[in-house]
Amino acid sequence: MQIDEFQQLMERLYGEADRERGVPATVAWLCEEVGELAQAVRKGTPEQQLHELGDVLAWVASLANQLGLSLEDAAERYVTDPPT
Amino acid sequence: MQIDEFQQLMERLYGEADRERGVPATVAWLCEEVGELAQAVRKGTPEQQLHELGDVLAWVASLANQLGLSLEDAAERYVTDPPT
Repeated sequence: MQIDEFQQLMERLYGEADRERGVPATVAWLCEEVGELAQAVRKGTPEQQLHELGDVLAWVASLANQLGLSLEDAAERYVTDPPT
Repeated sequence: MQIDEFQQLMERLYGEADRERGVPATVAWLCEEVGELAQAVRKGTPEQQLHELGDVLAWVASLANQLGLSLEDAAERYVTDPPT
């Protein structure tokens, strides 16, 4: 799946709810999911880890949608000018 | 860019350093970057927000690599069985 396809999917699934919730609450949700990911990594199964990785990706995409920014553009920097 | 292409790119660029650092330190880095993203969202420019979105994506991919998990698989759940 293309990164932008995934972002567009998040827009279709959650865009309206995202905009209603607003950016600060979305950041809070993202933090919540990162915590769940950290817990799954520490003491969860691979299935739980996979689930949380997906949730974190989804919330990053939701946030990018609300900011009007493209995750493809964000990812592209790692192709052209990766940090050392 | 495909999600798995991006993950493979992270493996090529950072896989060795990632494995040397280990999973807990990678989770700590991810949390650091999420904090930078939250700050950029709160008071940064769109360019800074884009930069931090990329960093968070990169660290999620690094973590997935170390866990031996596929971000494509993680994303796929949102195609087949998205949370409501």
